Amino acid sequence: MRASGRAPDDLRNVTLDVDWNRHAEGSCLVRFGETVVLCTATVEERVPIWMRGTGRGWVTGEYGMLPRATTSRTDREAARGRQTGRTQEIQRLIGRSLRTVTDLKALGEIQVRVDCDVLQADGGSRTASITGAYVALYRAFQKVVRTGLLKEIPLKTQVGAVSCGIVDGRPVLDLDYEEDSSASTDANFVLTDGGDIVEIQATAETDPMTDDQFAALLGLARKGVAELAALQRAALGLG
Amino acid sequence: MRASGRAPDDLRNVTLDVDWNRHAEGSCLVRFGETVVLCTATVEERVPIWMRGTGRGWVTGEYGMLPRATTSRTDREAARGRQTGRTQEIQRLIGRSLRTVTDLKALGEIQVRVDCDVLQADGGSRTASITGAYVALYRAFQKVVRTGLLKEIPLKTQVGAVSCGIVDGRPVLDLDYEEDSSASTDANFVLTDGGDIVEIQATAETDPMTDDQFAALLGLARKGVAELAALQRAALGLG
Amino acid sequence: MRASGRAPDDLRNVTLDVDWNRHAEGSCLVRFGETVVLCTATVEERVPIWMRGTGRGWVTGEYGMLPRATTSRTDREAARGRQTGRTQEIQRLIGRSLRTVTDLKALGEIQVRVDCDVLQADGGSRTASITGAYVALYRAFQKVVRTGLLKEIPLKTQVGAVSCGIVDGRPVLDLDYEEDSSASTDANFVLTDGGDIVEIQATAETDPMTDDQFAALLGLARKGVAELAALQRAALGLG
Amino acid sequence: MRASGRAPDDLRNVTLDVDWNRHAEGSCLVRFGETVVLCTATVEERVPIWMRGTGRGWVTGEYGMLPRATTSRTDREAARGRQTGRTQEIQRLIGRSLRTVTDLKALGEIQVRVDCDVLQADGGSRTASITGAYVALYRAFQKVVRTGLLKEIPLKTQVGAVSCGIVDGRPVLDLDYEEDSSASTDANFVLTDGGDIVEIQATAETDPMTDDQFAALLGLARKGVAELAALQRAALGLG
Amino acid sequence: MRASGRAPDDLRNVTLDVDWNRHAEGSCLVRFGETVVLCTATVEERVPIWMRGTGRGWVTGEYGMLPRATTSRTDREAARGRQTGRTQEIQRLIGRSLRTVTDLKALGEIQVRVDCDVLQADGGSRTASITGAYVALYRAFQKVVRTGLLKEIPLKTQVGAVSCGIVDGRPVLDLDYEEDSSASTDANFVLTDGGDIVEIQATAETDPMTDDQFAALLGLARKGVAELAALQRAALGLG
Amino acid sequence: MRASGRAPDDLRNVTLDVDWNRHAEGSCLVRFGETVVLCTATVEERVPIWMRGTGRGWVTGEYGMLPRATTSRTDREAARGRQTGRTQEIQRLIGRSLRTVTDLKALGEIQVRVDCDVLQADGGSRTASITGAYVALYRAFQKVVRTGLLKEIPLKTQVGAVSCGIVDGRPVLDLDYEEDSSASTDANFVLTDGGDIVEIQATAETDPMTDDQFAALLGLARKGVAELAALQRAALGLG
Repeated sequence: MRASGRAPDDLRNVTLDVDWNRHAEGSCLVRFGETVVLCTATVEERVPIWMRGTGRGWVTGEYGMLPRATTSRTDREAARGRQTGRTQEIQRLIGRSLRTVTDLKALGEIQVRVDCDVLQADGGSRTASITGAYVALYRAFQKVVRTGLLKEIPLKTQVGAVSCGIVDGRPVLDLDYEEDSSASTDANFVLTDGGDIVEIQATAETDPMTDDQFAALLGLARKGVAELAALQRAALGLG
Repeated sequence: MRASGRAPDDLRNVTLDVDWNRHAEGSCLVRFGETVVLCTATVEERVPIWMRGTGRGWVTGEYGMLPRATTSRTDREAARGRQTGRTQEIQRLIGRSLRTVTDLKALGEIQVRVDCDVLQADGGSRTASITGAYVALYRAFQKVVRTGLLKEIPLKTQVGAVSCGIVDGRPVLDLDYEEDSSASTDANFVLTDGGDIVEIQATAETDPMTDDQFAALLGLARKGVAELAALQRAALGLG
Repeated sequence: MRASGRAPDDLRNVTLDVDWNRHAEGSCLVRFGETVVLCTATVEERVPIWMRGTGRGWVTGEYGMLPRATTSRTDREAARGRQTGRTQEIQRLIGRSLRTVTDLKALGEIQVRVDCDVLQADGGSRTASITGAYVALYRAFQKVVRTGLLKEIPLKTQVGAVSCGIVDGRPVLDLDYEEDSSASTDANFVLTDGGDIVEIQATAETDPMTDDQFAALLGLARKGVAELAALQRAALGLG
Repeated sequence: MRASGRAPDDLRNVTLDVDWNRHAEGSCLVRFGETVVLCTATVEERVPIWMRGTGRGWVTGEYGMLPRATTSRTDREAARGRQTGRTQEIQRLIGRSLRTVTDLKALGEIQVRVDCDVLQADGGSRTASITGAYVALYRAFQKVVRTGLLKEIPLKTQVGAVSCGIVDGRPVLDLDYEEDSSASTDANFVLTDGGDIVEIQATAETDPMTDDQFAALLGLARKGVAELAALQRAALGLG
Repeated sequence: MRASGRAPDDLRNVTLDVDWNRHAEGSCLVRFGETVVLCTATVEERVPIWMRGTGRGWVTGEYGMLPRATTSRTDREAARGRQTGRTQEIQRLIGRSLRTVTDLKALGEIQVRVDCDVLQADGGSRTASITGAYVALYRAFQKVVRTGLLKEIPLKTQVGAVSCGIVDGRPVLDLDYEEDSSASTDANFVLTDGGDIVEIQATAETDPMTDDQFAALLGLARKGVAELAALQRAALGLG
Repeated sequence: MRASGRAPDDLRNVTLDVDWNRHAEGSCLVRFGETVVLCTATVEERVPIWMRGTGRGWVTGEYGMLPRATTSRTDREAARGRQTGRTQEIQRLIGRSLRTVTDLKALGEIQVRVDCDVLQADGGSRTASITGAYVALYRAFQKVVRTGLLKEIPLKTQVGAVSCGIVDGRPVLDLDYEEDSSASTDANFVLTDGGDIVEIQATAETDPMTDDQFAALLGLARKGVAELAALQRAALGLG
């Protein structure tokens, strides 16, 4: 049993509230336990300069954290005048993950920006962000389809993400902040609903990890993302 | 009747949800109609360097807006590397307003930082911020009192804020975004529950304003802040 | 009597020297006692991108302070790499005040930038700036009229500004630095020569202010700006 | 056969020249084919503030690229005033990889900064950096041991890195720039000489990747890093 | 005859008004024709960290230009967020020139910052700055001597500066903006009152310069600085 | 004899390796003793906006230093977010020196950017940069001529640079870092192969310098640059 009472392969309580924001083309407030992220998708009918004339679209991610999302207050990046390396790494990850599952050719010269802002953090904010961002993106595409600009939703597959790690020598799924702080290994898996790999970021914090340990983490992630994918479909009212 | 169906002296529907954030010493999610602001108060047992040894405390405000809080997306200040003049003006206003009603001597060498982050904007985000910030600050002080660090809550009076303006030639209370865009004059009033003046920022956008017009706006503000003060007391469970 | 020997409703000695700078289309060196500000107006025959094609003009203000304008030296904003919130707040105020009295439609697609640089500070630099900026702007418009680009000077009214405050419990006009530091309330009034309100920024520093106190300050400001307006007309050689 | 004439599991020609820089405590000029990186290790007898008094040491990585390291010139980050997200991501990766194999407790309160500057780029600059950084770090530790400050070299194992990817449907080892540009999947593996996992960053660029594909890449990486580890030992004159 | 009516070896009309600023320990408003620079010297009883405990003092220069000092308006460095290379080059020159003539050992652990702000520019602002900065520095030292902190003024010699150039094939002294723009060679000479060399910055703009041309410029500069030194003594009321 | 065993008028061992970088149109790795600089020239078929339509070309220089080029590590300018005044001063000098010897009219609307990055520093990095930059620029022009875009190499003369200084009371040529640190006067001379002056930057560090001292330095520089020019011709395979 984990400190939270969860079994090693249990997700936290996950909720996905769609259309939380009235202005965005698509939005989703995602909760992974006490981690709360607001995801909004903005559709723009023009792509970055370097893509113009290619007939292809683009999807980007941006990420931020409110100052008191964290246990002790974190200074505002806007006040310090630069985004941390961590922020940039996460927003690049969100963007790549969404682009891999989007049919950019079918999208045409449209750009979607997905903003993921962490209102409250308790570990796993990047995986919650990707999971909620997919829902916001889907919702935005539905709106574009309704306007007639696109015939169908240009998504090739679902995508979700979850963290796994080795805590007290045991592989566990969906780490909260306390577990994350004591994990010897931390890995983020971005997978499709079918279990294919979109992105893996695995980091051995204190000691290198064996093949078997890595395989165990990947197995947990498959189970977790399959459950997240079902929640995404439910939130979107899909079969 | 206004476009929203409100009478000239009607506030929008206002709600104040306390303790929305689990980490902050005090927090409040405030809604003025479709304007939604998350206010969190962080208590630090040390003041800025220039105040050390004075025996006095300090209260500051910070302000931010999520990219898609606005109708069309606004670029992230953290990405652009600097806060706009508007942001800085608002956060200075929040800080001054809270300090005027705080007994900084009774507070002792403690600093409270109040963050106001706009999750969704529809006009009046600075007045909603001040109104919610007071609640978050009060809540944080309650927590400090419970720890025994302070004997009583070092607030001299309540403070709330509301905007008024002249729209279509008529003074109205608590402008939404559409009204704000077409107002010939826009004024923000920060008042105590007793109606005294903490701060006035009145701006004639297109034409200078007469004394009578100004007096009408101040009158509306008094009515509005009295109602806001009652809502603050209710949210805090005070008599 | 005040420390300076002035009566409560006395302005400091005010001078307005026009055409102090040989390059600018309009310029004015304004002195409010020991506060000295150089105001220059630059005419550009193109407006910001977002205004092109609207047929309307624009007026902006910028503000700066030399490092040793202050009693002890202040670090150069250019060296620190960002303008303070105070600087941005003041330059926004200057710009708004000038635009309110300018007929932007009559101006056509012309932009005027008014720079106010404080060479020596002794309180009231923002009100001296606005008062001098009006003179520089008028002067620049005269030059544009002489070139035939405009038929008449596109100003609807004069504008001037003065600070008032409650010092030692008594309302006084045009505070110097020492008075400003000990004032319990500080208010800046931007008024037309006819006494209408262009902008009010009133701040209760230590205690909220009553209606009567506010009314007294506004009364002093009316007297002060009327005198400043007469000095502006004299400096410009107007009736 | 690949465009370069290499077999799918061939590394490029790799060289490691130690002591290339006369000032650094340890240095190594590493070449992976036409990719050339200068790695220097700087020893400082004090750790960052947040580590003082912990009795533990720290190792960080920094990364940069000369403007004309790339096929067409890239603007200088110092001139643009900020490091890109890519740069920050890579330098964080270098630092984590080195820390995982360092015995930070044995190191004591010493910090080593390893700078990796790309003089010429042709794909794989981050993996070349890590491989060369290990050699520079080892060299620096040898110097510290000679001074008597440490009794033995505080490294738990060797670490090297290599990229693998799926090009034209086939898994290949150590991609050059041309291969990298056309790869459907790109993965960077940081492994110990024994084949354990220090870090994996796998990204499916266009389509999600299957388990089998991932396993093939990991197998190639094991072979590649084993060869790199042998080259490291030879460069350092170890058994 | 030059366009201005000056002979080739004529300075422009030069004035040095001491004590122009009421706050600074020393100040001087210097005019070289239409070039106007305000120089202020600030005395601080502590030196930069890297000099503490050395028993030696330090003198630095800073330089700025008001936006409309120039014929057409120049954007404010504080607004752009960085100082140009030209600004930095000039302020480093001012600092070095003043330090060379100051007895830093006799000064003791005191720092003087000299700010040179160009109110109006017409060529030669850096040479006017150095010439005026010397006067402001001398004045500040007089004040320090009066307070008893120093026994005598720690200046080894006077220093002044002037530009020379080859205009229309002829060497001329003290170029104004128009001459400077058409000069084939531009040189700034910082010399002592005795004619010794403190700094030379000579730049051939279009074609390299011969020895004879350079010698002619140096000769003009000697004559010019001797005259400036006499004006400095007169302004300071020295024999 | 100097500490290095060199005679007062001896250069250090100088080498110029052309085509060191495979991507740049021209490149040269220059060594002045232990000072090592990589110079690359990038040809762009468009000039800066303000030059378009003039029919003239442009040459710029940029300069950087790797963190451990110096004896103790220097923080990365890209990490600090701004280039130092020293860096900007040097890159402006490199650009001016190259432009003076280039026939910008013959070049036509082409821009060449020359990057000089110091891999290892031991004094004289700016003079080594200019000397190597000329070689890289020449090499780039040869490439442009081969493509037929230019008929001949648009260089009017060779240019090289060397530092001289007064060390222990004696004028010496080509100072290394140790000599530079103890020099009472430091001067950088940029000269043509014929000995004409392109740029002089002479600075008296501790005491002003006499005419005779300056003349001695200039004499040494003439000898040094003549030798450098011969090495440039040899490196480029010119008569």
